Amino acid sequence: MSTEALTADRIASARARLQGVAHLTPVLRSHLLDDRYGVTLGLKAENLQRAGAFKFRGAYNLVSQLSERGKSRGVVTASSGNHGQAVALAAHMTGLAAHLVVPSDASAAKVAAAEAYGATVERVGPKSAERLQRAEALAAQHGWDYVPPYDHPEVLAGQATVGLEILSQVPDVDAILVPVGGGGLISGIATAVKATRPAVRVIGVEPEGSAAAFLSRQAGRRLAIPAGITIADGLRTVVPGELTFPIIERLVDDLVTVSDAAIVRALTLLLTHVKTLVEPSGAAAAAYAWQSPSPLAGAKVVAVLSGGNIDAAVLAQLLSA
Amino acid sequence: MSTEALTADRIASARARLQGVAHLTPVLRSHLLDDRYGVTLGLKAENLQRAGAFKFRGAYNLVSQLSERGKSRGVVTASSGNHGQAVALAAHMTGLAAHLVVPSDASAAKVAAAEAYGATVERVGPKSAERLQRAEALAAQHGWDYVPPYDHPEVLAGQATVGLEILSQVPDVDAILVPVGGGGLISGIATAVKATRPAVRVIGVEPEGSAAAFLSRQAGRRLAIPAGITIADGLRTVVPGELTFPIIERLVDDLVTVSDAAIVRALTLLLTHVKTLVEPSGAAAAAYAWQSPSPLAGAKVVAVLSGGNIDAAVLAQLLSA
Repeated sequence: MSTEALTADRIASARARLQGVAHLTPVLRSHLLDDRYGVTLGLKAENLQRAGAFKFRGAYNLVSQLSERGKSRGVVTASSGNHGQAVALAAHMTGLAAHLVVPSDASAAKVAAAEAYGATVERVGPKSAERLQRAEALAAQHGWDYVPPYDHPEVLAGQATVGLEILSQVPDVDAILVPVGGGGLISGIATAVKATRPAVRVIGVEPEGSAAAFLSRQAGRRLAIPAGITIADGLRTVVPGELTFPIIERLVDDLVTVSDAAIVRALTLLLTHVKTLVEPSGAAAAAYAWQSPSPLAGAKVVAVLSGGNIDAAVLAQLLSA
Repeated sequence: MSTEALTADRIASARARLQGVAHLTPVLRSHLLDDRYGVTLGLKAENLQRAGAFKFRGAYNLVSQLSERGKSRGVVTASSGNHGQAVALAAHMTGLAAHLVVPSDASAAKVAAAEAYGATVERVGPKSAERLQRAEALAAQHGWDYVPPYDHPEVLAGQATVGLEILSQVPDVDAILVPVGGGGLISGIATAVKATRPAVRVIGVEPEGSAAAFLSRQAGRRLAIPAGITIADGLRTVVPGELTFPIIERLVDDLVTVSDAAIVRALTLLLTHVKTLVEPSGAAAAAYAWQSPSPLAGAKVVAVLSGGNIDAAVLAQLLSA
């Protein structure tokens, strides 16, 4: 068995490692919105996860193992803020130094939170390729371990635990909606879910303006698209992951897109009706279900609210638009 | 024993009546904010209660009994929106018609939600005395039962169940912070808590601009104050309740005030750090704990987030200010 493979054993180990460390996030409900859209929708609230996003699961699962081995001099990563924060918190919890290379336009809230966890933060950008280069250079120079945002089996195994929790929290679920950026979350969830419940549909949701996985599936190969234009900053991936895309092709039933307007509408509904705050990326999956008519009418569905980190000023702008 | 008294029996009956009907709302936490303010603060999330506020408990406890007796022709109430919504939902659930007299400036969200529960809504205002008269006139004309927002022992018994839940969810709590409008919530909580755990401090929090209970306690009698100026629209009471004020005087350890600026700051922290939406009234109790230095430093405290009904546009304005 390949050391690169996302196996059931790896997922079971991740679950044990995260037990009592990651939050078992609730599945929120709105009967009023269920009635309005004709779909029974559970909202898996990873916006309530530690560090405010599902990213903590994968980051902790990998970083804690680096720490246990006792040979790491520190960890470094390059990504939009949520993965950075997750790595910062996981390093903080396991006694490692963390170094983050973040985009020059990264949200103030995300940078402040990472620094509050004791990480050093360096702004490089706007191109993600530059940040990746800088992070790899730092890793080589200082002997730090690079923590990738999705293309690592231990990161995927951590994200997979979201799928296990959904199956146990909503045993009769028909379909699971997952926002897709690099594909780490949906690869993990699809692997965990399809292993035991292959009839459960797993559907990936991307913003219309940044649909790398959707377009790659159409092309039949990993496609590098121009930098996406969408308010969902966590989903602005230009190419699907090397490890994740084959899993998506094998296990994900459908890839769909939603407009930015639908994302803002869903974010607002989550706020006013469910009283929960998500960032735009975190509203994409619910946005797909909450259409009139709903493409999932009559089904029992879970949408993953992937994260909740957004500046108050940015939120104010979205709500005023 | 007086039929008007808030007895332990009445509270126990309310608890049984609300079992499986009202949500057992969670106590939310933020380790980051606990560290920042030096206080261990649980946030009793009644913003996640049915109809978005604690008001559902008292309304359902009274309305369901009117319905059971089979003699009610419908219920009518006059109040700011949260109580109205609660009555509308409780009536809807128990098969009674509901009629609401709301302020002319009542939030669109609150009116829409009440109408979604099948209630008829009439805007009268801006004075609460006018609305009360209108509601009483309607009650007399049509033979409807008037459901008061706080001055009724069955309403208080419903609100008291919040106190029972806090004691069971946070058994080692030192102090409970409760926003005070008419005083129904704090009267109920104080009665429930002091009966079994008299050492637990119960502290009422009012906005500086509308502190009817605070000023009444200073005066030693129920004082009618000028209409309050505060963003906390649920706490703009001009005189403490007839039934509630004696309970407050007997059982509430302290009455304190917070500024509107502190309320907006707490609302923003709840949103960005706890990812939960409260209306301004619902942030008042947390605002008192989250001061530098905190007046409750070192203590184990629960603040009641009393409600979460706020228009997206109003929220956008608060966050932009």
